[in-house]
Amino acid sequence: MPATPPDVFLLPGPVKMDPRVLAAMARPAMNHRGPEFKEVLSDIRTLTQYLFGTRREVAVLSGSGTAGLEAAVTGLLRKDDRVLNLVNGKFSERFHDLCRTFAAATALQFEWGSAVNPENVAAAMEAEDFRAVTFCWNETSTGLTNPIADISKVVKAHDALLIVDGITAVGGLENRMEQWGIDALVMGSQKCLAAPPGLSAVALSERAYASLHSDTSFYLNLKAHVDALAKQDTPFTPAVPLFLAFREALHRLKEEGLENRIARTARLADAARAAIRALDLELFPDPRFASNTVSAIRYPAGIDDAMFRKVLLESHRTIVAGGQDRLKGRIFRIGHMGICSSKDLEAGFRAIEATLAKMGHRFERGAAVAAITNQAENE
Amino acid sequence: MPATPPDVFLLPGPVKMDPRVLAAMARPAMNHRGPEFKEVLSDIRTLTQYLFGTRREVAVLSGSGTAGLEAAVTGLLRKDDRVLNLVNGKFSERFHDLCRTFAAATALQFEWGSAVNPENVAAAMEAEDFRAVTFCWNETSTGLTNPIADISKVVKAHDALLIVDGITAVGGLENRMEQWGIDALVMGSQKCLAAPPGLSAVALSERAYASLHSDTSFYLNLKAHVDALAKQDTPFTPAVPLFLAFREALHRLKEEGLENRIARTARLADAARAAIRALDLELFPDPRFASNTVSAIRYPAGIDDAMFRKVLLESHRTIVAGGQDRLKGRIFRIGHMGICSSKDLEAGFRAIEATLAKMGHRFERGAAVAAITNQAENE
Repeated sequence: MPATPPDVFLLPGPVKMDPRVLAAMARPAMNHRGPEFKEVLSDIRTLTQYLFGTRREVAVLSGSGTAGLEAAVTGLLRKDDRVLNLVNGKFSERFHDLCRTFAAATALQFEWGSAVNPENVAAAMEAEDFRAVTFCWNETSTGLTNPIADISKVVKAHDALLIVDGITAVGGLENRMEQWGIDALVMGSQKCLAAPPGLSAVALSERAYASLHSDTSFYLNLKAHVDALAKQDTPFTPAVPLFLAFREALHRLKEEGLENRIARTARLADAARAAIRALDLELFPDPRFASNTVSAIRYPAGIDDAMFRKVLLESHRTIVAGGQDRLKGRIFRIGHMGICSSKDLEAGFRAIEATLAKMGHRFERGAAVAAITNQAENE
Repeated sequence: MPATPPDVFLLPGPVKMDPRVLAAMARPAMNHRGPEFKEVLSDIRTLTQYLFGTRREVAVLSGSGTAGLEAAVTGLLRKDDRVLNLVNGKFSERFHDLCRTFAAATALQFEWGSAVNPENVAAAMEAEDFRAVTFCWNETSTGLTNPIADISKVVKAHDALLIVDGITAVGGLENRMEQWGIDALVMGSQKCLAAPPGLSAVALSERAYASLHSDTSFYLNLKAHVDALAKQDTPFTPAVPLFLAFREALHRLKEEGLENRIARTARLADAARAAIRALDLELFPDPRFASNTVSAIRYPAGIDDAMFRKVLLESHRTIVAGGQDRLKGRIFRIGHMGICSSKDLEAGFRAIEATLAKMGHRFERGAAVAAITNQAENE
């Protein structure tokens, strides 16, 4: 049974957790309607507002990221509402699938690895009326960050609701949700916050909160969740251990400071990209839109995905992610969000160097790790 | 911040957990698409079938009991499908509210504390056609177990689908779901299994599995969850720590033996009822249908609910539940399911005796605790 966990954990979610976040879970049963859990929920509400950079309404749901997206979509849209889904990767495609289930959804497709082009969005919105627009702020599948400010400007000019998957963005990328006019922004616990998987949070604009309806949702009734949290309560039994860990991870974030974490994530991403260049490898996405929370890297010719990740894991106790769907076998992905450190990245690239060298890829040995070390020393 | 947890934890869910179940959660991040988690899911599938006493399809969802009910209802019914909800307490009422959101639901009401009367169900089903019938096997709010075999007989005679809330029943009450013809049976992790809250499981009949549709659900798409689990996978990011704890709690159950746990739960319930009589108190529900997993007890005249539970908690570090909705202030409730032991019950009734005596209720001191001790010694 369970081998010891990998030493270097660089998946783009779930991500490495602080031991104090893990320890917060292993607590005897708690009455989730009692004063102690009310205090937990009170902390969580305040700290979740801090995480999102908003004083408006937030909800924390006992369900993973997709549950948060569904709560936002079913709370804001009805079956006949027209929604435009901007699709440029696996997660925005899934978001489109979700929207097709609950509304009248149209996909506007972009090449995977290319950013959403706001001009195309404008053209689509001029051609047809949409009540809402959705996209993935950070497309984890392609390691790409969409130009959220520019997209928002277009959507707001057409007065549509803007529902954003920020699952691997919130807490890792600079966020101006109120300024940009985002109506619903969703995050997942196991990404930039570095809490365990299983919870999602949603932050709402004033307008979005005012237009929430409860006609087509029950467990994920967003209005019920928002209103309950404002009274330190939950509409249904919450996943108590995950809430305890979520609170601890929020405290951990607050101690570091949101701005500091975002800046540190950006520096780590720069270091990762320098290391990738040093390995004579290329990013998968358009480099102008390379994500700061996850790097997606093209395999050089002759490097087999399964073998590469097997050697990394078995010989170097290092875990990275492969590509998904049409990108399977073509890329690998490294998460550098949450509490990931220069040391983690150094260890990861040391393992990647050794593995690529063993598999016959040619590059200057030591340069990738040195790129990260130099960056860390300059801090 | 957090006071030490109560010493005697007798809520009707969440319930006391084994330290090994708690410890299973505090594990570093795990790749939920890797071989180790596949093994977790494989164990969970087999052991969940054991828990339900079925070899048919099961699903485990990252969402609490209500999520399991919603998955069953949205997977089996459509908006225009007529469903009859048998209502005799808070949780069956909530189940009706859920069904009204997703189908054409009619409630058949019974007095809270009375059992569902199968004759009334037969009359309702003769008067109108229903595609499905729902009820709470064990009404946690009133401490009552509905006559599931008799209700099932009526429903099956009309060839309707039978969707059962077994949240505080499965793993604690004798279960013959295949023989009775239950089409969908839902349990919650934090009840008779004594795992943390946040997961639910659904077991399906062959007929139910064959008629699952995916038109109106996404995160809780039951077919997707069932089919994924059969391949040791999940359709969306699972709440990994809760799955690890769930598996550990299932192992713990298997070690005790399902039949043994059910028999032990019945003996504990007998002991609790003897203790309640010794305190000169009365059960709230019709005693012919008193639940083996939770006892609901009427307050004697002059005992204030809030004061009673405050003294219990603060002076005796013992937690029990109050009544809900229309029963608030009128009853208190004790859970005796999961890994609850005679020792727990003894300690709980010792505290209850002391508290009632202090508050002026008259009874033979020591008799309640003695009733439990005697029962335990006879085992």
